[in-house]
Parts: sequence; structure tokens; C-alpha cells
Amino acid sequence: LNDLTKKIGLIGNGSWGTALAKLLTENKHEVHWWIRNQSTVQYIKDHHQNPNYLQSVKFNSDLIKPTTDLNSIFEECEIIIFCVPAAYAEDILAQFSTLLLKDKIIVSAIKGILPFCNQLLNDYLNTQFQFPHENYVAISGPCHAEEVAQDRLSYLTFSSIKLEIASKIALLFEGEKLRTICNHDLWGTQLAAVLKNVYALGAGIANALDYGDNFMSVYITNCFKEMHHFLEYHFDLVHPSNIKPDYSTSAYLGDLLVTGYSLHSRNRRFGMMIGKGYTVEATILEMNMVAEGYYASKCMKQLSKDFNYSMPIAEAIFSILWENKKSLSVFENLENSFS
Amino acid sequence: LNDLTKKIGLIGNGSWGTALAKLLTENKHEVHWWIRNQSTVQYIKDHHQNPNYLQSVKFNSDLIKPTTDLNSIFEECEIIIFCVPAAYAEDILAQFSTLLLKDKIIVSAIKGILPFCNQLLNDYLNTQFQFPHENYVAISGPCHAEEVAQDRLSYLTFSSIKLEIASKIALLFEGEKLRTICNHDLWGTQLAAVLKNVYALGAGIANALDYGDNFMSVYITNCFKEMHHFLEYHFDLVHPSNIKPDYSTSAYLGDLLVTGYSLHSRNRRFGMMIGKGYTVEATILEMNMVAEGYYASKCMKQLSKDFNYSMPIAEAIFSILWENKKSLSVFENLENSFS
Repeated sequence: LNDLTKKIGLIGNGSWGTALAKLLTENKHEVHWWIRNQSTVQYIKDHHQNPNYLQSVKFNSDLIKPTTDLNSIFEECEIIIFCVPAAYAEDILAQFSTLLLKDKIIVSAIKGILPFCNQLLNDYLNTQFQFPHENYVAISGPCHAEEVAQDRLSYLTFSSIKLEIASKIALLFEGEKLRTICNHDLWGTQLAAVLKNVYALGAGIANALDYGDNFMSVYITNCFKEMHHFLEYHFDLVHPSNIKPDYSTSAYLGDLLVTGYSLHSRNRRFGMMIGKGYTVEATILEMNMVAEGYYASKCMKQLSKDFNYSMPIAEAIFSILWENKKSLSVFENLENSFS
Repeated sequence: LNDLTKKIGLIGNGSWGTALAKLLTENKHEVHWWIRNQSTVQYIKDHHQNPNYLQSVKFNSDLIKPTTDLNSIFEECEIIIFCVPAAYAEDILAQFSTLLLKDKIIVSAIKGILPFCNQLLNDYLNTQFQFPHENYVAISGPCHAEEVAQDRLSYLTFSSIKLEIASKIALLFEGEKLRTICNHDLWGTQLAAVLKNVYALGAGIANALDYGDNFMSVYITNCFKEMHHFLEYHFDLVHPSNIKPDYSTSAYLGDLLVTGYSLHSRNRRFGMMIGKGYTVEATILEMNMVAEGYYASKCMKQLSKDFNYSMPIAEAIFSILWENKKSLSVFENLENSFS
């Protein structure tokens, strides 16, 4: 490794983790990849590709270092990227400690709030391990992992309280087909990523209720309005004297659009089944998974209570998913509030 | 006609004009419909439907009054809706006069700037006939006429300097499947409708250049950013002391989304042919029409000069359409400016 290339720890081997490993190794960084399953580790060592996700991606065998040993990646790497589904994160975090995290930079590529404690990862790390918010960077989209695998031009936003740390991490990923943007809105970009899953699930419900394109554009517009008004309110509480970010940028509106308008989004498919009248239980059984927007709607409901800030659309989706309200009557109520 | 129903003049019988006639007659208003072609007038009288557009719509024969006599509708009606393609508007406007327009309310449902004079309709009427801006209302979407024909829930925005005039016109259309929103941003909503056609044409070009969903969401986001920053700038010039509208609403972001993400938009199809390397001339021949975004890009280029305000995306689309610049290199330049 030369001065410009680094050893990076990566926790998580889903499609998004695999896309990030691709970007890092293409830039000649060494990826120390923590994977729970020994047979997956062996498969990657033998075949230089992830057996389960983005199989088209072939890794440089000198640079990809899969391992089941979590401690070893903390020993080797100063920068650790955390990229597991929010629902499973707390399980892995239980193995962390204040000592292990000392002097590390933690980069979060998880999309969502940790469901059990209802905290963003940086708040959790700070509460549990006194980990400083200053050493934390959040990565946000809009970014389907599949398009990164296909080398189609994509944009990532890196958010940190200290812009120089965000830039340092962004530089690891930057490439011909991967543009990077940095901002100082650490909490807001993470909350936007959570909210967009709730709204995408709602788009699926609306779709199943047979609303058309005209309505869908009004729905997404009003979701964006609700999102950025909440984020502005929240930003002023957290950073009272800072300049607010421009919400008409990729990490906020862009990520909402790519998720809300994607027909392939799992949140949207989940919502479509709910809108067609399936129960949450039947939808989970049928899809053999839980969409992120399902948990996210509960987290946002709690947040809107904590901050005493009303978010009628997110709360409406919550009431369908968690309080058994009828989709059609909930949406008929929403119709009247749109502008 | 009772106190609540009115005689409305309607100029224009394309799909959008036909959708408006449907909404008005369903609310029991009498529509005095100016149509140039005598055989179309006769067809509508005989069959109560427009032979060329939205044939599924059957009109109430007592309320639909087609005629080739432009003067008669001005004699009968206080409210005149103007709904013709911007490119043909000046031809019809040549028959207007200050006297004819006296005490009328003019409602514009045209989407675009009048291409020869490069003016919005209210500016044209004011310049040519001293028609007061106060008696003018602009209608904006997001609204595919086809979905109005199908009774799918849609939202229209009515903009006027005097909100009570906007509300009066909105009330004519309001119904179970048609919600209305009023605002005071007369110029801004009309300019948004023009700009969105330029951006939708650009979305078609990007599509043909094989950019993916990730890029498209960033592109649309940055179009919205460029649009609302320009509209804010423009609003402050025209209404220096007024409160700016919320741009995260239907008439601005919503209309951009429904046009930019629609696969059926003519602007988008036009752009796709350009992006595939067809010349403008070949595209016009092949599609047998000119997309609104083509003229709109020229109008916006002129406006950005007049206001000394740079709009890099709109200007990039202009340079492809009117200065023969290569789509790929123009988009590669744009890539670096997105946030």
C-alpha cells in the first residue's frame, strides 16, 4: 500500500456492502471484510466474488481480505465502515467496546435507525461507548447497489460534523463513475434516509389503491415538503447557529425520488401488498422479509413524539402498518392536506 | 343556469382543453367552446364528444356549446379560458382587442411562453391590450389530461395576483376527483411549467445516453434546485415585499416530477431521439410534431439573458437543441456540477 491507499474495515456483506467493497478495491484500498459466515469467507477467498450479492463483481484478490474475526479488522484498520441492516446492527454492536473504538473513524452506510434503542448509529455509539460524533461519517445515496455494480454513474453524499473528515472518506470512493458530495448535516442526511423508506412504502400503498401518476407526483412532492420542513426544524435544534443545508440535493430529494419512483424497491412492494389488503404478517410471510420502511415508520412516530413535531404523512403510514387502519380511508384523509 | 353555475368561454380543443371542458360541465357550467374547424363543431354537437381527443369523455349536451365564432364567446362569457399550444397562440391572439377583453377574466391553461414575442400570456395581453394582470389566472398541474378523463384524483393550482380571483376560478373546477390549490405566484407557476418541459426533454436525452436511475434522480433533483432558485430570484424582482411561495408543492416540484418521470411525455420522447443522435429536423419529421420543451429551451435561454441569471442545466439542453452541441459531452460537463 502506498501513501494514498489505505486499509479499510468493512462490516456487512449484503448488496450495498459488496458495492462499497467494489468501489474501495478499484481505488486500490485494502478491504478487511468482516463476514460472520466462514463458508462465505472461504468462497470469496476462492472465487473473489460474493456468492450471494452482485455476483458480476470480481474483486482484486490482493486487496480483498474476508475474515470472521471482528477484532482483527479493528486491529488492522483505522477506518471502519458499518453496513448491515439496521435490524441486525445491535447484535453486532454488542461486541464493540470503548477501547476497540478508540481513535477509529466510524463510517455508517446503514440505512435506518437502530430499532431497539431508536437511535442513529452515532448517537448509539456516543451513548454506549462515548464515541465522539466528530469521528463519524454517514454515507447516503441515491444509490442502487446494482447500478454501482454496472458502473453506471452514481453520486454519494458524505456527512460529518467536521467537513475534512467527510472529505477524507469521500476520497476513498471517488472515481470516474462515482461522484462524491460532502456536507455537515450528520443527523439530517441519516434521518432523510430513514424517512424516504417510510414514504416509499406509502407510494406502494397508493399504487395498490389505484391512484395515478398525477396523484403520485403530488404525494412525493408533499413527502418531500414534510421531510425537509422536519429536517430544518431538527437541524435548528441540533446546530442552532449553523447554515442549513440545501435540501434540493441528492442526499435528500434525490434519495426520496430513486426510492419512491423505483418499481423494484422492497419498500414499495411491501406497501403494494398492504394496499391490496394483506396484513403485515401475511406480507412478511409472502415476501420472506421485512421492508426497512416498516420499522422506520415506528421509529419516526417515536421521533415525532420526542420532538413534538407533527409529520402527518409518515404518521398516516405508521397508522396503517402498526395500528391496523384501513389504507383507503387513511389516504382519503391525506388527500385533503396536500398542496 | 343558477347562481352558482356560469357561462365559461373555452378556446382550444386539444386533450387538455377537452379535460377542462369535462370538469366544467360536470360542475354544471355552460362551456362556450371555440373551435376553428366547423366539422369538429358539428361532430361535437351530434355526438357530444371530441372526435380527436379523450373520446371516452361524453359531454352533457345541454351544457356544451361548440362554435366557430370567437366573438360570440366573448359576448356570452365573462370568463375566458385560453388553452391552445403556445406555438399557435399568437395567431389567435391577433383577433383579440382591448375592447373585446374589457372586464373579462382571462384564465390561461397554455403551457409555455409565446414563442415569437417571448412573453407569458399575461405580459402579452398587458403589453398589447393594456389588459390588467389582476384579472388573469394561470392554471398549472401536475395533470395528465388522460387521468382527468379517467376520473383519477388530480390536483390543479390556480395562481393570480388577487387570491380571491384565483379562488373564484378554482371553484369552477373543484370536485370529488379534482382538488384545487391557490397561490399568488402568477409569474412563477407559469415559468415553472415552461422550465419543466425543458428538463423533461433533458431527461429523455439522459435516458438515451444510458444513464441509470441513480443519475436520473440526481438530475431531476438538480433541475428542481435550478428551477426554484431561479423562481425565488425572479419572484423577488417582481414582488419584492411578498412572501415567497413554498416550492415543494404541486405546481412546481409535482409538475416537474410528473413530466420528468413520465415515459409517455412527448418532451421525453423528443429528448430520447436527440440523445440517440437524431438531428432536431429528423426528430420533428419522425414524431410529426415539435415537443414544447424545444421552443421552451429557447425562451428560457433568452430569459436567463434578460435577467442575467445563469441556469446551467436549461442552457445545456438549449445548446444541444439549438447549437448542435453533442449530447454526451454536454451531459459529461453537467455531471460535475450536480450536488
